[in-house]
Amino acid sequence: MNARITPEGSLEVLSRYEVSLLKDKSKKGLYDIFRQCALAVLNCGNESDDCKAIMERYKEFDIKLVNQPRGIKLELTNAPASAFVDGEMIKGIKEHLFSALRDIVHAKSVLAKSAELNLDSSSGITNVIFHQLRNAQFFTAGALPNIVVCWGGHSISRQEYDFTKKVGHELGLRGLNICTGCGPGAMKGPMKGATIAHAKQRIHNGRYIGISEPGIIAAESPNPIVNELTILPDIEKRLEAFVRIGHGIIVFPGGVGTAEEILYLLGVLLHPANKKLPFPVFFVGSKENASYFKMIDTFIGGALGEEAQKRYKIIIDDPIRVAKEIKKGIDEVAHYRRVHRDAYYFNWLLKIDPLFQQPFQPTHENMANLQLHRDQPVHLLAANLRRAFSGIVAGNVKDEGVRRVEKFGPFEIHGDKTILDPLEGLLESFIKENRMKLPGKVYTPSYRIIN
Amino acid sequence: MNARITPEGSLEVLSRYEVSLLKDKSKKGLYDIFRQCALAVLNCGNESDDCKAIMERYKEFDIKLVNQPRGIKLELTNAPASAFVDGEMIKGIKEHLFSALRDIVHAKSVLAKSAELNLDSSSGITNVIFHQLRNAQFFTAGALPNIVVCWGGHSISRQEYDFTKKVGHELGLRGLNICTGCGPGAMKGPMKGATIAHAKQRIHNGRYIGISEPGIIAAESPNPIVNELTILPDIEKRLEAFVRIGHGIIVFPGGVGTAEEILYLLGVLLHPANKKLPFPVFFVGSKENASYFKMIDTFIGGALGEEAQKRYKIIIDDPIRVAKEIKKGIDEVAHYRRVHRDAYYFNWLLKIDPLFQQPFQPTHENMANLQLHRDQPVHLLAANLRRAFSGIVAGNVKDEGVRRVEKFGPFEIHGDKTILDPLEGLLESFIKENRMKLPGKVYTPSYRIIN
Amino acid sequence: MNARITPEGSLEVLSRYEVSLLKDKSKKGLYDIFRQCALAVLNCGNESDDCKAIMERYKEFDIKLVNQPRGIKLELTNAPASAFVDGEMIKGIKEHLFSALRDIVHAKSVLAKSAELNLDSSSGITNVIFHQLRNAQFFTAGALPNIVVCWGGHSISRQEYDFTKKVGHELGLRGLNICTGCGPGAMKGPMKGATIAHAKQRIHNGRYIGISEPGIIAAESPNPIVNELTILPDIEKRLEAFVRIGHGIIVFPGGVGTAEEILYLLGVLLHPANKKLPFPVFFVGSKENASYFKMIDTFIGGALGEEAQKRYKIIIDDPIRVAKEIKKGIDEVAHYRRVHRDAYYFNWLLKIDPLFQQPFQPTHENMANLQLHRDQPVHLLAANLRRAFSGIVAGNVKDEGVRRVEKFGPFEIHGDKTILDPLEGLLESFIKENRMKLPGKVYTPSYRIIN
Amino acid sequence: MNARITPEGSLEVLSRYEVSLLKDKSKKGLYDIFRQCALAVLNCGNESDDCKAIMERYKEFDIKLVNQPRGIKLELTNAPASAFVDGEMIKGIKEHLFSALRDIVHAKSVLAKSAELNLDSSSGITNVIFHQLRNAQFFTAGALPNIVVCWGGHSISRQEYDFTKKVGHELGLRGLNICTGCGPGAMKGPMKGATIAHAKQRIHNGRYIGISEPGIIAAESPNPIVNELTILPDIEKRLEAFVRIGHGIIVFPGGVGTAEEILYLLGVLLHPANKKLPFPVFFVGSKENASYFKMIDTFIGGALGEEAQKRYKIIIDDPIRVAKEIKKGIDEVAHYRRVHRDAYYFNWLLKIDPLFQQPFQPTHENMANLQLHRDQPVHLLAANLRRAFSGIVAGNVKDEGVRRVEKFGPFEIHGDKTILDPLEGLLESFIKENRMKLPGKVYTPSYRIIN
Repeated sequence: MNARITPEGSLEVLSRYEVSLLKDKSKKGLYDIFRQCALAVLNCGNESDDCKAIMERYKEFDIKLVNQPRGIKLELTNAPASAFVDGEMIKGIKEHLFSALRDIVHAKSVLAKSAELNLDSSSGITNVIFHQLRNAQFFTAGALPNIVVCWGGHSISRQEYDFTKKVGHELGLRGLNICTGCGPGAMKGPMKGATIAHAKQRIHNGRYIGISEPGIIAAESPNPIVNELTILPDIEKRLEAFVRIGHGIIVFPGGVGTAEEILYLLGVLLHPANKKLPFPVFFVGSKENASYFKMIDTFIGGALGEEAQKRYKIIIDDPIRVAKEIKKGIDEVAHYRRVHRDAYYFNWLLKIDPLFQQPFQPTHENMANLQLHRDQPVHLLAANLRRAFSGIVAGNVKDEGVRRVEKFGPFEIHGDKTILDPLEGLLESFIKENRMKLPGKVYTPSYRIIN
Repeated sequence: MNARITPEGSLEVLSRYEVSLLKDKSKKGLYDIFRQCALAVLNCGNESDDCKAIMERYKEFDIKLVNQPRGIKLELTNAPASAFVDGEMIKGIKEHLFSALRDIVHAKSVLAKSAELNLDSSSGITNVIFHQLRNAQFFTAGALPNIVVCWGGHSISRQEYDFTKKVGHELGLRGLNICTGCGPGAMKGPMKGATIAHAKQRIHNGRYIGISEPGIIAAESPNPIVNELTILPDIEKRLEAFVRIGHGIIVFPGGVGTAEEILYLLGVLLHPANKKLPFPVFFVGSKENASYFKMIDTFIGGALGEEAQKRYKIIIDDPIRVAKEIKKGIDEVAHYRRVHRDAYYFNWLLKIDPLFQQPFQPTHENMANLQLHRDQPVHLLAANLRRAFSGIVAGNVKDEGVRRVEKFGPFEIHGDKTILDPLEGLLESFIKENRMKLPGKVYTPSYRIIN
Repeated sequence: MNARITPEGSLEVLSRYEVSLLKDKSKKGLYDIFRQCALAVLNCGNESDDCKAIMERYKEFDIKLVNQPRGIKLELTNAPASAFVDGEMIKGIKEHLFSALRDIVHAKSVLAKSAELNLDSSSGITNVIFHQLRNAQFFTAGALPNIVVCWGGHSISRQEYDFTKKVGHELGLRGLNICTGCGPGAMKGPMKGATIAHAKQRIHNGRYIGISEPGIIAAESPNPIVNELTILPDIEKRLEAFVRIGHGIIVFPGGVGTAEEILYLLGVLLHPANKKLPFPVFFVGSKENASYFKMIDTFIGGALGEEAQKRYKIIIDDPIRVAKEIKKGIDEVAHYRRVHRDAYYFNWLLKIDPLFQQPFQPTHENMANLQLHRDQPVHLLAANLRRAFSGIVAGNVKDEGVRRVEKFGPFEIHGDKTILDPLEGLLESFIKENRMKLPGKVYTPSYRIIN
Repeated sequence: MNARITPEGSLEVLSRYEVSLLKDKSKKGLYDIFRQCALAVLNCGNESDDCKAIMERYKEFDIKLVNQPRGIKLELTNAPASAFVDGEMIKGIKEHLFSALRDIVHAKSVLAKSAELNLDSSSGITNVIFHQLRNAQFFTAGALPNIVVCWGGHSISRQEYDFTKKVGHELGLRGLNICTGCGPGAMKGPMKGATIAHAKQRIHNGRYIGISEPGIIAAESPNPIVNELTILPDIEKRLEAFVRIGHGIIVFPGGVGTAEEILYLLGVLLHPANKKLPFPVFFVGSKENASYFKMIDTFIGGALGEEAQKRYKIIIDDPIRVAKEIKKGIDEVAHYRRVHRDAYYFNWLLKIDPLFQQPFQPTHENMANLQLHRDQPVHLLAANLRRAFSGIVAGNVKDEGVRRVEKFGPFEIHGDKTILDPLEGLLESFIKENRMKLPGKVYTPSYRIIN
């Protein structure tokens, strides 16, 4: 499909310098990353999580900026047909294209050049995230805490998917908004349920927030319901964005990506500075998922101990209770922020160790050198386990990771036997339950546990 | 549940006279009918189509008007709990309560007293419908034709229901709005699908129109997605409202109610004056429904002839084609109205024979006297067949009809064998396929074909 | 000027019957009254208060309804050029045209036919006013009392006009809305001042309400700032509308029309049933107006007594105090209505004697028979004095009244000397101060006091 | 007055770093400049143009940021009472406070640190202006050119002021928006007129843009009608903002500030690169102003020649013609931008010589060294003349300039006799006509022409 796209909403107003950046196909320019994100956004609806395959399939795809007196237009050639209905692009996808453009320009032009926003310091990184989200107009003045982050697999069963819709419906009936990683599966179901519930409650400004990053977006194309999309520069900033803007978190069943998110979250919450910070976390599923969460719970108990287990509650087969409890939890968050004069819209008080903030490159060397032993505080062990899962995700679905594993073989993971054994068990059950990738292909592990 | 309800949107502004009418529990007053419609609206979500049972179950239910400086409040006692989430009434249902109040007051106070709006003349009846819909703010200035009426059973299978959602989704993606009889089943599915599609297309003013009448509303409680609800005085005015504001009609599988609607529609369209009037009609279902529509088609062919069969098209298992074809059909409607300077929002040009407009009372006598023979123009035979189905619906689910059948036994239906035979066949297949009532009870026929 | 006008806002949706009424040029039809009001609306900006002259000057003016699929259009021929800017009609005036159409159709079609809205009974008349204002969407749900009615002359000095702007500015700064008779002079100044103040206070839904009637509208063309215009059927209903929707009243200097309004208001408030009803009334002017209000005050004291004088307060040269005091008075009104559960938006509790409601025809016979003596309760004397002033207004500026006086000579007014003497004095000072008509012509009295 | 202020609209969402900047009272911090601008904004309505006196009068004034969960609040102590109505701050002024905060934070935090936005290069300066205006949401997507910049004196006669209102009214009736330097006099009149006209045309999003800078804002407090206020870092960027966002310019009578603006504008337009660029400029006044503009015209002819005189048109006593001609001129601008694919919202194509962009410090030395001779291209002579006027403005009303002149005596201005003679004549006539400062004090010249 070829098309000319005019923006509906924000920022078609670019400076001449910004336009030149987006047109620049050199390493310094933004053309490549913008093209890649645009393709991911357009590819929505084509169920595939193989970034490399997608990129190759649409290698003729091109996107061009066209200056217009009233703003910028985009000219697409050879775009995926799934983004169109009867030759017209779906409006939600149109918006996503311009959200991608906005974030990429902002991150790389104004923001990246600003000496004050130092990416080497912890507070500098947090500031960059704040600025990007503010520029994306994520912070609405005067709103009360109501953002529920939903995590969970992109590859789940029909029955699990229907369950996430039910939970989303109950959240939506209670006026709560949904934030996810914006792909299919557990990232789409709660939004669908909430959309219907918001319609019933006449909530016309319901928020369906999607937070992505350039590496994963092709595997987890934002579904067009997402009406606030932001693309953070990397996975670590994406995770930080989740925990700084979410007021509570629900974890549905998932695979290694979900495990990465769980370990990130628990690692952050286990930091001694966060001990008293209220943060409602629920692991949630249908009756069939009871054993799944038992397994996760056991793994966490074994790896991180009881303190970590206290940070979440498992609720099985009861969407109404989930909604009621997370609402109660969010009320406590609101109270805490009021008392401590912290913002409702950004969790400044949450302490995040730099180990969770620094981008982790899943090279074979870095994977082999992960510190998976017990001679460290438990929140740092969580950080390293998070990196292990992050590497496996990359090897499974991310363009660069897949290429590396194809070239050098599976990542090797070393460490204490008391940690590696349960890790191996968990990964094997993910494989058995088809949670590694979308169905259709046989899964070849991207890792090897060296025990 | 007890509750005090303040209106969200329109008309809480009543005159003193109107308030006194609504409080008046005598025959002349409006209390009874308002209480009955309010109960039906509140009962939404409780899946039952047995009006009599519902009325009896909630006989303690009461609703009172309370004067307030800023408008009217409603005070409910012993209301069905299903209308509430955590003790708060769902906003959509709140709106429905006030829509019911608006329509009942308007129909019975200003409108009914106006000599100009003569209910004995055909144009008088049409005028009353116009006034009621205008008062309900159904006519939006400047809108292009985009209303698809969806008919079909309230008692359908899960698989049939999912199919109606898919069709609704394709309609919604193309910017079309949905109008139904506002109960469950085929009346809810298309709205759900369209809601999701409208969210994707950033259509914030999507219309989910429900048209009901006091006799049926308890069996077909409006689902809270409906954001424009109107309650016409009787079934005939309800049917006329459908064909005057709809720009195209999709018929999903259903039972006797659906058959009534089909016969009404074909009877109207077969009027010689409507010969050239474009009016897109599609009978639509999944692969499994192919035989069902074959049977309907055969019945129509037999009873009304080929001319009738030309007025609709059957499309099986192809939601995208349905959406595309009805959109094309609606474009023709728009063109026709432009040429003939008729309104987009109200089909003044459609000629409706008074036989279709006069309220039909399904008494045993009237049912026995139906003219089901071939010595009449085919559109009048359709009118009489429509009445036969209407009576059976009443005997199945409407409060008064059920009581009559309990007291005097099934309605007896006489007529030509060439009409009664296929009729009987059709009805029996409805019974076999569970299309007469919601599952749960054994169906005892409310009719007897005297062949 | 010729033009084709499409409505911007409400009711272009007419039934076929309503369209035929508006096209009907017979006595039964609405064409004549609609044309007359439309012409008055269009004539805005041409400073003349001579209705007869206006009607004659534009006798070629014609207005036609044109059916369109999206609603009604209006086709104008030979319209006054002052309604246009560079060939395009000013939007405010466009709105006024359709407001006139709306009110005329509503009053004469639905409303007039409704037996319930009996124009012979006092409550029937009040109900008609309520229905018309509701149909014009004057009642906004949930609004607090904030409507200040401003009365005063259409023919005032530049310095008096500037003072009304200042008062309007102070009212607007305090969030109050303005309602007037919608002509020039004291009816325009407060709206202008409030518009600027509302802009400063970012009040985007400021209300500038104009209430007129077919007889006076040509002499007092609504200025285009008016954003809610309604045309009541006659002067008595217009006056009742003022006192039922206004929460407080400010009277600026004026002539016989203003005197009519003052006597109406005091007569109503003097009814024993209204004794405890709070109703803030202020007579307001600049330093130069001190003697004017002294004269009015003396006349009221002489004619109606001390009780009447207690119902208002005179404030000279202090716009801020006016605004503060009327705000305080309105707070008391709000409190009273809350306690008595009366509506904020319509003063149901105010008792209006039928003598004030029945239309008064200013014929020579009726004027000669006015009961201007002291053998009656004081509020009825006020009613009769009101009629005397009303007749003089008609003789001065209304089409029919002017024709009568031209034909039969001035109206003769009889009565007690103790009433007629001060009346004559007041009228003479109006003449001296140029308050009878807009400047430009010598004023010939339309009355004769027979003392 | 003391008060706590919550923002109404945008950006109360600050990062922790930004909050600390605003609280920092050191040279590096933003407290001083924010306090100064805030005071200027609050002082609106107190008619004085003596910045120094204002600062001294309110030296007890303080402003503090208070963190709140829902955003930032401001706490004011000893604020000017004129900003309040009955103890509540006027909303327009509230907005201005937060606009000032927004611009100061943005200019000094993100923007100033960004290496890409180099203030030493011409395009860098233009980029900074673009970013600041974009951040202030001045660029509305899809809007057609409609911004008329109105320049002219803050100290003008009542009759001149009324004339600016009339011109503003005619502009507003034609849907044009107003942009001024946001003080009293010719900067307020057109906005008032346009506000009334926009109300008549039902234009609810009329734009009343004020562009100021920290040095002048105290002398020209933004009037509360201004609904888009921005504070650029210095006078040169303010002037560039005017000519980049304005689509046409009207110059009313004024004093040295107006002369500075005229010379800036003509100097820019005389740059050879701008020769073909359409840019409508009108010098506009009432009959009484005819001689004033003759004098200005003569001065320009003498100093800059005929080419400069061709760039503007003088229209006397004809507001409707002004409005029609500038609308025509703006249509040509729109056409030109369409053809050259330049933005409607920012005049990228206009070439501005760095001499006009570099901040000019009006020290005695710089003033004495101005190159006022004919051995340079005419657009550079204009640049230097602009600086001469700029220095006199500073000596008249700006805090620092006034202090310098008090300390070292008047600025001395040298140059060619053929330039200085007419300059001196012009300045003397400004003094005679009271155009140097607001009335009330005798004017002592802040300059001396050394001829």
